[in-house]
Amino acid sequence: MKDQNPAPRITTGPLPASRKVWHPGEQHPDIRVPMREIDLHPSAMEPPVTVYDSSGPYSDPEVQIDIAAGLSRLREGWITARSDVERYDGRAVKPEDNGFVSGDRLTPQFPLQHRPLRARGTRAVTQMAYARAGIVTPEMEFVAIRENLGRRAAKEKLIRDGNDWGAAIPDHVTPEFVRREVASGRAVIPANINHPEIEPMIIGRNFLVKINANIGNSAVTSSMEEEVEKMVWATRWGADTVMDLSTGRNIHNIRDWIIRNSPVPIGTVPIYQALEKVNGIAEDLSWEVFRDTLIEQAEQGVDYFTIHAGVRLPFIHLTAERVTGIVSRGGSIMAKWCLHHHRESFLYEHFDEICDIMRAYDVSFSLGDGLRPGSIADANDAAQFAELETLGELTQIAWAKDCQVMIEGPGHVPMHKIKENMDKQLRHCGEAPFYTLGPLTTDIAPGYDHITSAIGAAMIGWFGTAMLCYVTPKEHLGLPDRDDVKTGVITYKIAAHAADLAKGHPASKIRDDALSRARFEFRWEDQFNLSLDPETARDFHDQTLPKEAHKVAHFCSMCGPKFCSMKISHDIRAEARAKGMEEMADKYREGGDLYMPVAE
Amino acid sequence: MKDQNPAPRITTGPLPASRKVWHPGEQHPDIRVPMREIDLHPSAMEPPVTVYDSSGPYSDPEVQIDIAAGLSRLREGWITARSDVERYDGRAVKPEDNGFVSGDRLTPQFPLQHRPLRARGTRAVTQMAYARAGIVTPEMEFVAIRENLGRRAAKEKLIRDGNDWGAAIPDHVTPEFVRREVASGRAVIPANINHPEIEPMIIGRNFLVKINANIGNSAVTSSMEEEVEKMVWATRWGADTVMDLSTGRNIHNIRDWIIRNSPVPIGTVPIYQALEKVNGIAEDLSWEVFRDTLIEQAEQGVDYFTIHAGVRLPFIHLTAERVTGIVSRGGSIMAKWCLHHHRESFLYEHFDEICDIMRAYDVSFSLGDGLRPGSIADANDAAQFAELETLGELTQIAWAKDCQVMIEGPGHVPMHKIKENMDKQLRHCGEAPFYTLGPLTTDIAPGYDHITSAIGAAMIGWFGTAMLCYVTPKEHLGLPDRDDVKTGVITYKIAAHAADLAKGHPASKIRDDALSRARFEFRWEDQFNLSLDPETARDFHDQTLPKEAHKVAHFCSMCGPKFCSMKISHDIRAEARAKGMEEMADKYREGGDLYMPVAE
Repeated sequence: MKDQNPAPRITTGPLPASRKVWHPGEQHPDIRVPMREIDLHPSAMEPPVTVYDSSGPYSDPEVQIDIAAGLSRLREGWITARSDVERYDGRAVKPEDNGFVSGDRLTPQFPLQHRPLRARGTRAVTQMAYARAGIVTPEMEFVAIRENLGRRAAKEKLIRDGNDWGAAIPDHVTPEFVRREVASGRAVIPANINHPEIEPMIIGRNFLVKINANIGNSAVTSSMEEEVEKMVWATRWGADTVMDLSTGRNIHNIRDWIIRNSPVPIGTVPIYQALEKVNGIAEDLSWEVFRDTLIEQAEQGVDYFTIHAGVRLPFIHLTAERVTGIVSRGGSIMAKWCLHHHRESFLYEHFDEICDIMRAYDVSFSLGDGLRPGSIADANDAAQFAELETLGELTQIAWAKDCQVMIEGPGHVPMHKIKENMDKQLRHCGEAPFYTLGPLTTDIAPGYDHITSAIGAAMIGWFGTAMLCYVTPKEHLGLPDRDDVKTGVITYKIAAHAADLAKGHPASKIRDDALSRARFEFRWEDQFNLSLDPETARDFHDQTLPKEAHKVAHFCSMCGPKFCSMKISHDIRAEARAKGMEEMADKYREGGDLYMPVAE
Repeated sequence: MKDQNPAPRITTGPLPASRKVWHPGEQHPDIRVPMREIDLHPSAMEPPVTVYDSSGPYSDPEVQIDIAAGLSRLREGWITARSDVERYDGRAVKPEDNGFVSGDRLTPQFPLQHRPLRARGTRAVTQMAYARAGIVTPEMEFVAIRENLGRRAAKEKLIRDGNDWGAAIPDHVTPEFVRREVASGRAVIPANINHPEIEPMIIGRNFLVKINANIGNSAVTSSMEEEVEKMVWATRWGADTVMDLSTGRNIHNIRDWIIRNSPVPIGTVPIYQALEKVNGIAEDLSWEVFRDTLIEQAEQGVDYFTIHAGVRLPFIHLTAERVTGIVSRGGSIMAKWCLHHHRESFLYEHFDEICDIMRAYDVSFSLGDGLRPGSIADANDAAQFAELETLGELTQIAWAKDCQVMIEGPGHVPMHKIKENMDKQLRHCGEAPFYTLGPLTTDIAPGYDHITSAIGAAMIGWFGTAMLCYVTPKEHLGLPDRDDVKTGVITYKIAAHAADLAKGHPASKIRDDALSRARFEFRWEDQFNLSLDPETARDFHDQTLPKEAHKVAHFCSMCGPKFCSMKISHDIRAEARAKGMEEMADKYREGGDLYMPVAE
């Protein structure tokens, strides 16, 4: 493969002014938690700003990337050290796994095929099981360090500023806090034992808000580099997890390439592949083909499965008079199956067996919202909430099996109906992490649905949603290209960060303050480097003031040198400090003799 | 001028599938209120969708546009019929009005110089004065019809869906309702008697949320067509008012070209021009030069003035320890002046005289927030709220003089501090309309501040802000180009519309529902035409599915023909209607015999 494509198009290298640093564990000294430090100009006399780093080894200049070798398997020792798993001969790849393609049209198999791991006997090898057993795993310590963004525990209580709507965000995240959150089900660490390449991350209401980016193969191309690059590109800009929503041909082999090269958890919707295996005919689906697909993907290392087990037969008629019916692909497939057979969903009926598979590999549930509203008109309706209550029932069943669970949420919801979604989710689903798509706050802006949905995403993130699934500008219209993916990821980083700020996450404001100080002090390079998208910030600046000298100028393009409000503020500050302005100003306070109320 | 540029670059013509329609007045039969009707495909069997139209005659194919002649002066008769104004020889244009340029560098004067109008004697010729006198002006009936979007009053009470946070949005806006709102100060109709070209619009918490776009001359160009085109372009996409923030040379003459061609109210910040007249030296400003500028601009027809009279000397020291000091240009100019002279602001001291000018021309106040926060760190601080309370005092003084008043608001505010801004504004400023810039909900995304701010704008619009000042992607970085202006306007139309939906404005959901029905029925052309930006929606669709046939296809690019959730929903609906699905489903409801709880 490398011979055919000697220059793989994988984006590597650090972001501007950024270095990767590692924080070691204490309970588990071998763990190294990556963070990104952004260096500031020496004139700032400020330490580097540490930010969360989802980009994996691709941004590390020390690492030689070879996608045919995959990433290093950093968790392998942690997993095997627990002595509760066994290697076995996995399920053989079948022709239908790749859509019956062969020869030139078949994407080559990933070169290194590892024998899969599974739990010994009927054990649960989930992070939840360990947490409940009182064990702080390396994964738990890893995410604890990661969430603190390099801050050490302060002896004194931090001054907190935010409204967390009843969450319980600690001043400092300890491994024990992580353990308790995972044990209670309030957080998940998606980490399939067959995906040892991931740098663990946590999804929960009491942690930083995460974002997911969707990728998928396209009919035009099935190059492995292109598919891997989509994942690398999304994580470079901040995607915390990636869902592979591929359909059609080559999906088994492409998924292998993605997982073996992914530093972030990978999610899928297994019913998509199951449907491919029955030639796209929903009514031909069966528990057997679905089960086979779960095993196939669990062995590959998929970290979470979207499973639409809440789309029950009795709820389907509730969608008949909706403006936009069922808009979830998985939901509509199951609805079609249920109606055709006039039977209850096989996902619902076999949920217990699904749990047995999930716990044997530590695949987390993402209980799908197959009946989510696809328009403002359908928001918060009976179908949606009937399904949500069912997801709550299923959560209890999964938790009883020590399975990790997230709950998927809408969709299209006007602002005044967003909080009800969060409140009902918390109530019905026992505080299992909520994972929402947007929600879009209006239907009238196709082409801008990253924005219609960022409004809803920021709000529901503030209210307690743990992970936000991105929406790109192409939503409803077409397939996102590279620029759309970046725009979607940056937009959702904005929403997630705005939510963290509003929740009062103790580390979240550091970057805002550093950037604002840079702005006030005309450190243009620092402003670019501290921003979510340094390239675009620099490019926009240079369109108006292209000269290098302008990047150290004490003015900007908005006002020009004669008329700069920031400059005047500097003068004010200097004057205040020199003259003791406060004393001067006291003379002029209201009630002083200078103020003459104007005659009426 | 037309000889030099035979093809002026003014964008004209209707949007796709759109016709301009006029609704006549009843009390004032000569008024014709423009709206845009979007025709749907005949297969929809739906009436056209009526939407608000801010684009003026430029989108009317029947109108011959000649920017050297200006728009027709539709309000002239209404104004003179009130018999309370007089024509007089206006202030002569002075060399400093255009920055002392001459010859080739001087933008030509607008060809038709009308003698200005002003109030006779000391009368107030404001919409507020008429409203308080019980008069329903043509302007009031005009906006009443406009706000209803062509709906007629329903006999039965509408089913309302929204949370208006204590606003009082009527089912149907009557001219008398408008009069009461204007009389109380809860709404303003910016309408200088010297700007008879405008199509009146209203700004208030109980009406549709409005948006403002800023334009300004650039150093590179001073072509009249370009400046007029900026205004036309912004209003084409939905700007309800336009602020001309020009500085430097030619600003008097350029302003004339803009106003004479503008169908929307024009706002300015007069202190910017006053500063030009004193060569950019803030301490050389005086009441006399400011007063002269107010008269100059009032005679030209500026509809509202931003006046930073709340930046009082005793408040300035409150900004000294801020992260970003004073970020308002007007605020920093006044702070500089106050500190230099160690005197109270001349705007504050002469506020009564300013009111006398405003009432003689019906220029509305936009009381500037010169101390607004420029960073998350500075949000809701003592300086900001001290100024807000002062703006409340000034509002009472202005109202006592029958002047119309809006209050400007921030700025940079994290989500959890937004509502406090709205609550304090309502309390301190007697429900005068709030007019906010964003607010931006995080500082870390330069290049995407249209999005960081759309989140805050949608929320504060929902809470009660009456007009949202747009932010473009170039905010903090450079000067917006044509694409940035469009992106900013569309983004803010999204925020305003999301707010209208959440407030439960009775006409707001019609367009969402029509677009969602079009989506469900695969009427692609209708989806494009109903969207805020039909060009972009179509372009994005065509990037993936370019063929004409795909625009009538019953599938889309996301899933393809085999795998379409919308199509499955249609099948479900058909089946439901054919078989009486509800009865079928009853058998399977929870508790029915098919549901077997899974064993634990």
